[in-house]
Amino acid sequence: MAKCTIDCSTCTSSHASIQEMYGRAQELGIKTTFDRYQDQLPQCSFGMEGVCCQLCSHGPCRITPKAPRAICGATADTIAARNLLRLACHGLSAYSHQLEEAINTLKATAEGKTPYKIMEEGKLKDIAGALGIDTSRDINAIAADLANAVAYELRKETREPLKLVELLAPKTRLSAWDKLGIIPGGPLSELRDAMTKTMSNINTDPVDLLLTTMRLSIAAGYMGLIATITLQDIILGNPQIGVTQADLGVLDTETVNIVAHGHVPYVAVAVLKAIAEDEELNYLAKEAGAKGIKLYGSMDTGQELLQRLNTAGKGFAGQLGNWLTQELMVTTGAVDLVMMDLNCSIPGLKLAADKFHTKLVSVSHVLRMDGVDTNMDYVPEKVKEQARELVMMAIEAYKKRGTVNAVKVPKYKSDVIAGVGVESLLGVLGGSLDPLLDVIKSGQIKGIVAVVGCTNNRNGHDSASLQLIKELLKKDIMVITAGCVASGAQIEGLQTLEASDYAGEKLKAICKALNVPPVLNFGSCIDIGRIGIAVTAISEALGVDPSQLPVAASAPEYLEQKAVVDGVFAIAFGLLTHLGPVPPVAGAPNVTSILTGAVEDLVGGKANVEQDMVKAAEQIEEHIMSKRASLGI
Amino acid sequence: MAKCTIDCSTCTSSHASIQEMYGRAQELGIKTTFDRYQDQLPQCSFGMEGVCCQLCSHGPCRITPKAPRAICGATADTIAARNLLRLACHGLSAYSHQLEEAINTLKATAEGKTPYKIMEEGKLKDIAGALGIDTSRDINAIAADLANAVAYELRKETREPLKLVELLAPKTRLSAWDKLGIIPGGPLSELRDAMTKTMSNINTDPVDLLLTTMRLSIAAGYMGLIATITLQDIILGNPQIGVTQADLGVLDTETVNIVAHGHVPYVAVAVLKAIAEDEELNYLAKEAGAKGIKLYGSMDTGQELLQRLNTAGKGFAGQLGNWLTQELMVTTGAVDLVMMDLNCSIPGLKLAADKFHTKLVSVSHVLRMDGVDTNMDYVPEKVKEQARELVMMAIEAYKKRGTVNAVKVPKYKSDVIAGVGVESLLGVLGGSLDPLLDVIKSGQIKGIVAVVGCTNNRNGHDSASLQLIKELLKKDIMVITAGCVASGAQIEGLQTLEASDYAGEKLKAICKALNVPPVLNFGSCIDIGRIGIAVTAISEALGVDPSQLPVAASAPEYLEQKAVVDGVFAIAFGLLTHLGPVPPVAGAPNVTSILTGAVEDLVGGKANVEQDMVKAAEQIEEHIMSKRASLGI
Repeated sequence: MAKCTIDCSTCTSSHASIQEMYGRAQELGIKTTFDRYQDQLPQCSFGMEGVCCQLCSHGPCRITPKAPRAICGATADTIAARNLLRLACHGLSAYSHQLEEAINTLKATAEGKTPYKIMEEGKLKDIAGALGIDTSRDINAIAADLANAVAYELRKETREPLKLVELLAPKTRLSAWDKLGIIPGGPLSELRDAMTKTMSNINTDPVDLLLTTMRLSIAAGYMGLIATITLQDIILGNPQIGVTQADLGVLDTETVNIVAHGHVPYVAVAVLKAIAEDEELNYLAKEAGAKGIKLYGSMDTGQELLQRLNTAGKGFAGQLGNWLTQELMVTTGAVDLVMMDLNCSIPGLKLAADKFHTKLVSVSHVLRMDGVDTNMDYVPEKVKEQARELVMMAIEAYKKRGTVNAVKVPKYKSDVIAGVGVESLLGVLGGSLDPLLDVIKSGQIKGIVAVVGCTNNRNGHDSASLQLIKELLKKDIMVITAGCVASGAQIEGLQTLEASDYAGEKLKAICKALNVPPVLNFGSCIDIGRIGIAVTAISEALGVDPSQLPVAASAPEYLEQKAVVDGVFAIAFGLLTHLGPVPPVAGAPNVTSILTGAVEDLVGGKANVEQDMVKAAEQIEEHIMSKRASLGI
Repeated sequence: MAKCTIDCSTCTSSHASIQEMYGRAQELGIKTTFDRYQDQLPQCSFGMEGVCCQLCSHGPCRITPKAPRAICGATADTIAARNLLRLACHGLSAYSHQLEEAINTLKATAEGKTPYKIMEEGKLKDIAGALGIDTSRDINAIAADLANAVAYELRKETREPLKLVELLAPKTRLSAWDKLGIIPGGPLSELRDAMTKTMSNINTDPVDLLLTTMRLSIAAGYMGLIATITLQDIILGNPQIGVTQADLGVLDTETVNIVAHGHVPYVAVAVLKAIAEDEELNYLAKEAGAKGIKLYGSMDTGQELLQRLNTAGKGFAGQLGNWLTQELMVTTGAVDLVMMDLNCSIPGLKLAADKFHTKLVSVSHVLRMDGVDTNMDYVPEKVKEQARELVMMAIEAYKKRGTVNAVKVPKYKSDVIAGVGVESLLGVLGGSLDPLLDVIKSGQIKGIVAVVGCTNNRNGHDSASLQLIKELLKKDIMVITAGCVASGAQIEGLQTLEASDYAGEKLKAICKALNVPPVLNFGSCIDIGRIGIAVTAISEALGVDPSQLPVAASAPEYLEQKAVVDGVFAIAFGLLTHLGPVPPVAGAPNVTSILTGAVEDLVGGKANVEQDMVKAAEQIEEHIMSKRASLGI
C-alpha cells in the first residue's frame, strides 16, 4: 500500500489502523469526514457561539455589537438557550424512539412472535412489580403488561410525573428537581411542549428554557436510557463479562462480513442467530467461496453485543470502531454489508461504499440515506426472516468483493474485556459494592469518572478522550466508558488487565487485586443509564446525594444531540460534567454563566468546558478531592 | 405629536395607524421590529438559502462551491429538507399543544368545572358518533368521552392511522396519501419520529424528509387544526356573522384596557364574562377613575373572539391588529394589561411595555418572557378566578397610566364583518352551497383563494398581502382570510360590504346580491382548518378532488413555523400554494424543484414562490383558469 502522503494533522486519528486506511482512502480518491472537516474551515462563529437564529422567515438573525437583539427582540441568551433545548429535543426523541422499539419488541416477544425470549425474569419482575403489575402470573403475561405500562408512561401527559423517576431517582435528587418544577411527565408530551416553547416567540426566557432542558434530560435519563436498557436486558440478557477483540484488524478477509452499525441490537442478534443456526446460509456462503459468515460491530450496536458475548451476542466477531471509523471500515474492501440502524450513519458512508461492492441497508424505519434503496426496516415479528434475507444479501455482495477496488485490511487489533453492568460488576465484587466502596474510602481509588459520548474530529479522533482517560488513570482515578469513547478505548487496549500499567500505583494495585481493567466498559451510549444506576447505588450505599460523591462525568469529544441531553442529565444528576468541544452557547453570557456556575447551587452539577485534557484531568481531580474532603474520606 | 421623521421605507407598514405610532416610538426611543430588521441587514445568505447546518458539534457547516458537502457528507438538499422538517415539527407541536388545551378544557367543562358549557350539541354528537362514541347519553358524558377519544388519537403510535384523517379527508386525497405512505398516526409519536429523523445522521434522504414533512402536515391539519377547531366550537360556539371594528383607533382612552394577544381564547372569554357579570370589578374600575373595562383582541386570540361576537366573544371591544402591531399598540400608552398566550409574543413587546405602565402577563404555561414575572397559566378549572385576578391587575395598572409616558391613540378604525365558518356561510347562502357553486360554475366568481398566514416586515407589514388581495379581487376571485392576514384586511376595510368596490364587476355584483364582503374572514390561523373543511365540502359537492378545483392558497407574508406546516398541508391537500417570502430551501436544488414542481404529480399541489404580488395574482389566476378549463366550466 502506498504510504499516506497526507500531513497527519489532517487525519488526526489516534489509531494506526485509521491512519493507514486514511492513506488508502486518499489513494482511492475517497473523501472522508477528515477531509470535509478541513474543507469547512473556517467555520461560522455565530453558529459556533449559538447566537444565530434560523427559526422564522425574518431571519436568520445574528447577534453582534451592532445588532444586540434579533428582529423580534430576542437576546443572545434567548437564542442560545432555545437552540440548546431544541438539540435536547432531538436527543430525547431518538432515545424515545429506541424505547418504543424496545416496547414493541418486548410485546411481540411476550406473544412468542420473535426469535427472542425473556432472558431476565428477575429484572422483569422487579420492574413490573415496582410499576404495580401483578408478578404472580405467567412470565409472558407480566412482560406484555410491562410493555403496556412503559408505553403508557411514554405517552402520558406532562402533568403526571414519570413513575420511573419517582421510583428510581435518589430521594435527594427528587427533592432538588421538585423545587425547580422539573420532574417530567410523559416524554412525548414533554417533547411536544419543549418544541412548542422553542418555536418563534413563545418562550423567550433563557432561564425557563434551561430548566426545560433539564426537565427533558431527566425524561431522557429515566425513560430513554434506563427504561430502554431495562427492557433490552429483559429481552437480550444482562451484561456479562466477556472477552473479544477490537480494531479493523479483526476483519476476516476470507468470510462473508456483515457489520452491525448504529445503536439498536435486535437485528444484529437475529443475524447472529441465523449465522449460528441456518445451515443453508452457511452452505451458500461456502458455495460463494467464503470460509463462513461473520458479524462485526461498529459503534454502539457493537457495544450492545460486546455486553452480551456469552448470550445474545454469541458468535460476535469483534468491534471495528466508532462513528469516525465508518467510512474507513468500508475502505478496507472487506465489508460486504452494513446494517444501519438509528443514528450515526453518515452520508459519507455511501460515498465510500460507492467505491466498493459494499451493500448498505437501513434496518430502521427512521433511517434513510440518499442513494440507498434497500430498506429492511426492523419489525420484531419478521426479524427472523429479515435476518436471513440480510445474510443472503451479504453473500450476494461478497461475490462482487474486490471487483471494484482491492481488499486491504490493516493488521491492528486489541483485546477487550467487556460486559460491565451493575449486575456483572457486583458479580466481580463478590455480590456487594463494599469492596469498591472500601477502596474509594481508603483513597486507593480517588474517584470514578465516566468518560462517555462520541468522538470528534475537532478534538482529534479519540485523541482527547484517550488523553483524558490516561491522565485520569495516572491520578488513580478509575474510568468507566460508554458510547463511541468505549470503542476508542478498546482499540487503544485500555480495557485489558495489562492496561493497569497506565494507572497510578494505587489504582494499578487495586486492578491487579480485583482482576479488572482500569477502564470498565459499560457499553453503548444508552448504557450511560447503567452508570446512573451505579452512581445511585453508590450514593444510597453511602447515604449521600450523588452530588456529594467523588465522581464526575466527561464527554471529551461529544458530537450529537443524544450527547447533549446526556450531558445536561449528568448536570441535573449532580455531577461535574466536563465537555471538550465548546457547546454552542459561548456567545450567550448568561446561559454560559448559568451552565458553568449558577446551576451548581440548584442541582449540584455544572458544566466544565476545557479543551486541554491535562488541565481537564486536573480540574476533575480537584473536584474529586474536594468531594472527598467534604465527605471526610 | 411630532411628525414621524423616519423614511417610510424603514417602517414599511401599510397602515396609517402604525406609521403614526412608529413615529411616536421613535420619539420615545423605543426600538421596534421595524428598526431591528434594519439592524440585522445584510442577513446571512447560507441561512436564508437553507444550507447551514447547526446540528452537531462539528458544525456549523455551510454548503459552498468549495465545500459542496457538510463534514458528515450531507448535501445542501439533505440539510435544507432536514431544516424544513424541523420547522414543521415546531408547527405541529404548537398546534398539538393547543389541541391538548382544548381536550383539557372540554374534559373540565363536561365535569362542570369551568365557566364554559357545551354550546354546540349537534357538532359534539356528529364528531363523537363518527369516532364510535355512544351519543344517546347525557351530553356531558359524550363530551368527556370525546375528550378522551381525541386524547387517545393525539397520543397513539405512528402505525395506527389517524381516525380523523380517514373520516374527514376527501377519498381521493386518502388514496394519494396512502400511495405515498404519508397517512399519519398519533401526532406526538409522529413528532418524536420526525425529530429523530432530523437528528444528526439518521435520515439524510431529502425525499423521505419531504414526505415526512407532508405526513406531519396532515397530522397537523386534521388534529392540530380541525380537531382543535371542532372542540373549541363545541365549547365556545360555532362562528356566527357579527360586526365590530379594527385598528388602534378602537382603543378607548377612558376605560381599563385589556388586550388578549396570542392564539387561544379561553382566558379572554372568561375575562369577557367577568367584565359582563362581576359588578365589583366594574365598581373597582370606576373607583380607579375609569368609565369601565374593555377587552380588545390582538392577533389570533382576537380573531377567535371576532368569530363569536354574539356568543363567547360578546362584549369584545375590537381588534387592534396583528403581530407586527404589538409593540405599537403598547406605545399608545392606553393598554393596561396584555394577556399573552401561546405564540407570537415577542421580546420586543417587553421593551415597549418598559416605557409604559403596561402589565404583561403570560396566561399559558409554555409562554415565558425574559423580564416578565407574572404568570397566570391557564387552568380550565381555575379560569374564572384567574380572569378576575387579571382584571384586578389591569385596574391596578390603569392607575399608573400616563405616569411614565403620555397616552396617544391614533384615530384610525375600520368596520369589520366577521364570523364566517362553514355553518354561518351555509346560513348566508340559505342552507346550501349551491348558490356559491352556481356562481363559480357560471364564472361570476372565477375562483376562491385563501390568503392566510402571518405578516412580515421583509415584504412590508401587510403590504404584500393587501396588494395580493386587491389584485385577486380585481380579477373576480373571491378571497378568504385567516390568521394575521385577516387583521390586516380588517384594518384596510376589506371585510365590509363597501369593499366590493375593490372587486371586478362580476364579483362586485355577486357580493351585492349575496350581501357579503368580497373578503370573507374565516378567523384565526387554526381556522385554516375551516377552509380545509369548506374546500372538502365544495369538492364533494362537485364530485372532484380538491386539486381539480379553481382554488388556491397563499401566504404572502408567512413568518413562522405553524405557517410552514400549514403551507405544506395546503400542498399535500392538492392546492397551488403561493408564498411571498422565499422559504429557506433556495440553496437546495432538488428540494426546490420538488416543492415547486415534481410534488404536483404526487399530490396535486405545489409551492409557487413569487415576491411580486401583481405577478403572483396573475399566476394564481392562470392556475384557476386552467382548473376551470379542465372542469369544463
